[in-house]
Amino acid sequence: MLAFVCFIFVCCTCFMCFTFYAAIHFIICGDHCSLTYSAGALGGGMMLQGLSVDSSGPSFTPLVVVELVSDAKEETIGWLLNKIRDQQHDGGAELLVEQLGPGVGAQEKENPNLFLVGATWQRLLSGAEDVGLFKESTDGSMRAFTCANKHNFKDFGGDGDGFLSMAECQYIIKHELDTLRAKDETHVPGYKQAKLYPGKSIIRRLLSKRILIQIFPLHDKEELKRLSFSWYKKVKLSLQPLDDIRHYYGEGQALYFGFLEYFTFALVPMALFGVPYYLFDWEDYDKYVVFAVFNLIWCTVILELWKRCSASLAYRWGTLSRKKAFEEPRPGFHGVLGFNPVTGREEPLYPNIKRQLRIYLVSLPFVLLCLYLSFCVMMVYFLMEGWALSVYDQEPTFWTGVLLFIPSIIYAVVIEAMNLIYRYAAEFLTEWENHRLESSYQNHLVLKVLVFNFFNCFASLFYIAFVVQDMVLLRQSLATLLITSQILNQFMEAFLPYWLQRRRNKKMIRKVQKRRILEDKELPLAEQVRLEADMSTYLGTFDDYLELFLLFGYVSLFSCVYPLAAVLVVLNNVTEVYSDAFKMCHVFKRPFSDPAANIGVWQLAFEAMSVIAVVTNFALIGLSPQVKTYFSDSETHLILWTVAAEHGLMAFKFILTFLIPDIPKHIQIKLARLEFESLEALKKKRQLHGGKCLKPRSSGRWCSEEERRAYKY
Amino acid sequence: MLAFVCFIFVCCTCFMCFTFYAAIHFIICGDHCSLTYSAGALGGGMMLQGLSVDSSGPSFTPLVVVELVSDAKEETIGWLLNKIRDQQHDGGAELLVEQLGPGVGAQEKENPNLFLVGATWQRLLSGAEDVGLFKESTDGSMRAFTCANKHNFKDFGGDGDGFLSMAECQYIIKHELDTLRAKDETHVPGYKQAKLYPGKSIIRRLLSKRILIQIFPLHDKEELKRLSFSWYKKVKLSLQPLDDIRHYYGEGQALYFGFLEYFTFALVPMALFGVPYYLFDWEDYDKYVVFAVFNLIWCTVILELWKRCSASLAYRWGTLSRKKAFEEPRPGFHGVLGFNPVTGREEPLYPNIKRQLRIYLVSLPFVLLCLYLSFCVMMVYFLMEGWALSVYDQEPTFWTGVLLFIPSIIYAVVIEAMNLIYRYAAEFLTEWENHRLESSYQNHLVLKVLVFNFFNCFASLFYIAFVVQDMVLLRQSLATLLITSQILNQFMEAFLPYWLQRRRNKKMIRKVQKRRILEDKELPLAEQVRLEADMSTYLGTFDDYLELFLLFGYVSLFSCVYPLAAVLVVLNNVTEVYSDAFKMCHVFKRPFSDPAANIGVWQLAFEAMSVIAVVTNFALIGLSPQVKTYFSDSETHLILWTVAAEHGLMAFKFILTFLIPDIPKHIQIKLARLEFESLEALKKKRQLHGGKCLKPRSSGRWCSEEERRAYKY
Repeated sequence: MLAFVCFIFVCCTCFMCFTFYAAIHFIICGDHCSLTYSAGALGGGMMLQGLSVDSSGPSFTPLVVVELVSDAKEETIGWLLNKIRDQQHDGGAELLVEQLGPGVGAQEKENPNLFLVGATWQRLLSGAEDVGLFKESTDGSMRAFTCANKHNFKDFGGDGDGFLSMAECQYIIKHELDTLRAKDETHVPGYKQAKLYPGKSIIRRLLSKRILIQIFPLHDKEELKRLSFSWYKKVKLSLQPLDDIRHYYGEGQALYFGFLEYFTFALVPMALFGVPYYLFDWEDYDKYVVFAVFNLIWCTVILELWKRCSASLAYRWGTLSRKKAFEEPRPGFHGVLGFNPVTGREEPLYPNIKRQLRIYLVSLPFVLLCLYLSFCVMMVYFLMEGWALSVYDQEPTFWTGVLLFIPSIIYAVVIEAMNLIYRYAAEFLTEWENHRLESSYQNHLVLKVLVFNFFNCFASLFYIAFVVQDMVLLRQSLATLLITSQILNQFMEAFLPYWLQRRRNKKMIRKVQKRRILEDKELPLAEQVRLEADMSTYLGTFDDYLELFLLFGYVSLFSCVYPLAAVLVVLNNVTEVYSDAFKMCHVFKRPFSDPAANIGVWQLAFEAMSVIAVVTNFALIGLSPQVKTYFSDSETHLILWTVAAEHGLMAFKFILTFLIPDIPKHIQIKLARLEFESLEALKKKRQLHGGKCLKPRSSGRWCSEEERRAYKY
Repeated sequence: MLAFVCFIFVCCTCFMCFTFYAAIHFIICGDHCSLTYSAGALGGGMMLQGLSVDSSGPSFTPLVVVELVSDAKEETIGWLLNKIRDQQHDGGAELLVEQLGPGVGAQEKENPNLFLVGATWQRLLSGAEDVGLFKESTDGSMRAFTCANKHNFKDFGGDGDGFLSMAECQYIIKHELDTLRAKDETHVPGYKQAKLYPGKSIIRRLLSKRILIQIFPLHDKEELKRLSFSWYKKVKLSLQPLDDIRHYYGEGQALYFGFLEYFTFALVPMALFGVPYYLFDWEDYDKYVVFAVFNLIWCTVILELWKRCSASLAYRWGTLSRKKAFEEPRPGFHGVLGFNPVTGREEPLYPNIKRQLRIYLVSLPFVLLCLYLSFCVMMVYFLMEGWALSVYDQEPTFWTGVLLFIPSIIYAVVIEAMNLIYRYAAEFLTEWENHRLESSYQNHLVLKVLVFNFFNCFASLFYIAFVVQDMVLLRQSLATLLITSQILNQFMEAFLPYWLQRRRNKKMIRKVQKRRILEDKELPLAEQVRLEADMSTYLGTFDDYLELFLLFGYVSLFSCVYPLAAVLVVLNNVTEVYSDAFKMCHVFKRPFSDPAANIGVWQLAFEAMSVIAVVTNFALIGLSPQVKTYFSDSETHLILWTVAAEHGLMAFKFILTFLIPDIPKHIQIKLARLEFESLEALKKKRQLHGGKCLKPRSSGRWCSEEERRAYKY
């Protein structure tokens, strides 16, 4: 037993060292690479001012890059550029676009078909109205921006200079490009096989036919430098600069970091509660009832409070009451051409019944099969565990003691590998299910991945807790799983991409240096764009949320038997903030901002987990020797009381969900005021209109009583 | 035991006889009283054509009656009438209003201050736009009515004659009267104590100061006759004429009757399943497991399907997507004058914290005290039950056998009485809590009444089922409770008011006959209005839904031990349709229509009951000897399996709630199409506008590159 305790401590210490190493590494290395990286910084700053020092620079501020395949036909390129440049009433996007000049060392390998897209300031403002952007008005409330009332908005000085953030401008340009629609073209010029029909989004067709490689927004070096400094490059006890993150990356990202921060703070009381528990009651397995009760209440309350937090943030950022635009089909969606019953436009239709069949006859059995496989792997793990134990019992040396932990570590690695493979399979299957909307695709993917990951990560713990009923083994497994998966995650998520990117980065700098002497260590625009085009694409917050979801599971389900779990998760989250921030700033292409109003389907997932946590914790309480002594005469009574208490708490949980309003009072009032004002305005308009329509009649025609009667009312 | 079975059968037979007696009575007596009652029918028909045969009749079609106190001051009356008649831009309602002439036998007792309100057809159409009425357009979708597009609506022939139903006209007039606001008056002229402030609804102040007795819409005799004939005056196997009910009474009423009908049909399979069960397995208490499982699935599924039904109905009636107007404070709401943060208008404010204190420090303890009292009464009942049993055991004669049922019957009567008294207390308390909105008042009242009624009606059954664990006693109690409460309800709800109204009716006819010989048995308008003014006021669907809720409880919770419950409830529902229909048509004043989109808080209440039903049924399954024999070796296993199965089903239930969309697909498409069209229209408007704003600049000012650069983007 002593060996076990020692090992856990060693593990923890290792992890903490690792954590601090990581943090410090980031601080120092972050600065270092910002040096090599800020090569492009001033160039970016100049870019923003539109002073193109480089001969290859465009005559406007580039915001978004469009990359076509290198062998794209001339006629296609010309057609696309015309579409982008055309006036809006001719069906164009009325944007500015220029080809990126060749780099310093223009090689044959370089793709010449990179285009920089920008827009005039006026065009961006009218685009802001199109996408329904919410901005703070002079009276402090958030309102949908309109060109007509532009001077009623805060920060709209002069001609609106600096009113829209760069991320917003880029989002607007993406929206305008996305809604470029075919008129009477039957196919993309130059590509007979790329069919078009009136109303089809051109960009989506080009993407799905792989004529268009990617569209991505450019980084703003100056701002990125400032952001990364305030975010992770100083050792500080302050909060994350959420507003700046939102300003640079958009609401979806900022909400993720907001949630990560909130979750970390929410864990602090549990961690504080857990440490003395861990230190003083270590061998007293009975005493976890108090901790389980604490867990129960904790996980119910924090999720409710997060909803309010999230609503506050979303209101401040103007996404809470922003109306969603009508969703276009996904680029990969295919089907027989028909008429959409909602829009009346021609678009591919795919019968829902076919999709349902694919889901229930293929995807569901596949998921079940995977779960079964995962179950088999778990059983093998228990066999290995048993074998290791028997070896240790026969010959209890230090090495056989270490051997005890080998199965757990192997199992943790296998789990991570299975999760990874399954993830690809799930993506393939969900793609094959052919969902029309991106949101529906995402929901199905999340569901598939969640179920499997949940089972994979927690099945063994449930098995140990409720079938084997061995709390010592449970504690040991939990610690191993938690620590191994955290180390693996940090490695896979941040370090691996970081090293890869660093190598690429260095290569580019070397290449530039070879050709020309850099005076101020800056990359010219063309190189900068090419460098960013080569960076990995950020695939959204999916994996980040999934990781938090699993951590939340470890903490809420089983932390009562291993009170240090909360501490480990807090440490992990702190490094997670740093590694995620670093990854966002230096490893990935800048993502387009995503005007999210909440964390979406993940709120539901976390709530489902908290329900499972209530059940699990009550079951653990029922199993605890402490409780069992109270009901020493009758096991039946013990179970009945536990079940009754569980039902009571579950009812209380649901009542609490109703009682705590999801949106804080002061925001509710502001929203109601907006709605009231629009209703009043409508009424006034109607009365003016109605009065006009009513007056001539009521004065002239309706005066005689006989006529009035003839109209019955 | 034989005595018991006999008694139950006698009870059932009695009840069935009673039911059929009631049905037949209604059919015959309904016709009879429609004879005495149709006295006013043709007058109504003429009324509608605006041909006022009577000298006292108004020069327009009266729709709504406003009754002031008989000693109202002349100046108040004049001021109010002017307000109603004034042009809209002067702050009036622009309606037509006339005083009702004296009746035939004008006595000193008669109130002279009855006013008839009507409106021109044009005014009603503009009012329909104000209230946001949805109507079917020529393309079959439901759209908000606007004066400008009036010719795009179906049934809008000529000048729109017959386009609005009478109920809609009355609703519009009520809305216009309700939104008559004070301008610069500081008090109601003639009543110094009735304070006013700018923006205060005049009608609400007059109501709260009891200067205005009531506002009610007039019946339309012709239509009522037609409706009642198709509704309940013929013995038929067809459905209720829901569209006609909605046409006459509005959506709230029609949804109640729709739900009643749906619930009855939903019970039929259970009743069909129950009868053979009851007949052949009578003494075999073990076999209720199948029935319990059936119950479980049944109550989960029917509520989900009802949501879809309800959405279909609400869409057809145009209330599904109708926007709610901004809610005014209730007439009884009081507080210190301040500014509403939402509207910016002056209105009384009452601190929320005070209300919360009243709720948690007074109302909640009161409810708990009442529950305790109810518990005590229950205990007394069990004592009586025990005493009766001991008497029967000592001397088992027929009379002591009957004595066995006396405690149950007394208890049922006491329960009904307690429910009634508690209802008044709950209304008083909720009034005292001083809720600002009618909806919040209703929700708090429903919650209070529901909790108490639930406990009162079901506590004894739960006690018998799970503490005493006596299924025979449970069956017996259930039958007694169900039958007694049904008989009492039918009596209190329909017969008592009916006899009272009949007496009043006869008196009026006699009075009229005394003064003048009626040629065609018709009441003149003045008498008709006065008769209706004296009728009881319909207090809304609260009690009707409450009754259904309790019946749903009896069926879903315990019907597995008494399969005949479903049959009894079906019978009760059939008579309920008749008695409710009769009551609506002949006992009560016509209510104002209520544009409800669903059954509101009751959906939630029924869903909560279905969750409780799942738990209860699983507990009953766990207790059944049939299941116990499977787990004869270990009671612990039995309980664990039961609990596990219950959790599984509960999870399945929640997943089902997500999987079954609340709104049927075809309606979702129609709604999405409307939204899409409005978005497109907005975009088009913006592009026109934006184009205008953009053009002069983009052609002139933005042409030079230097200037463009100076604007940074």
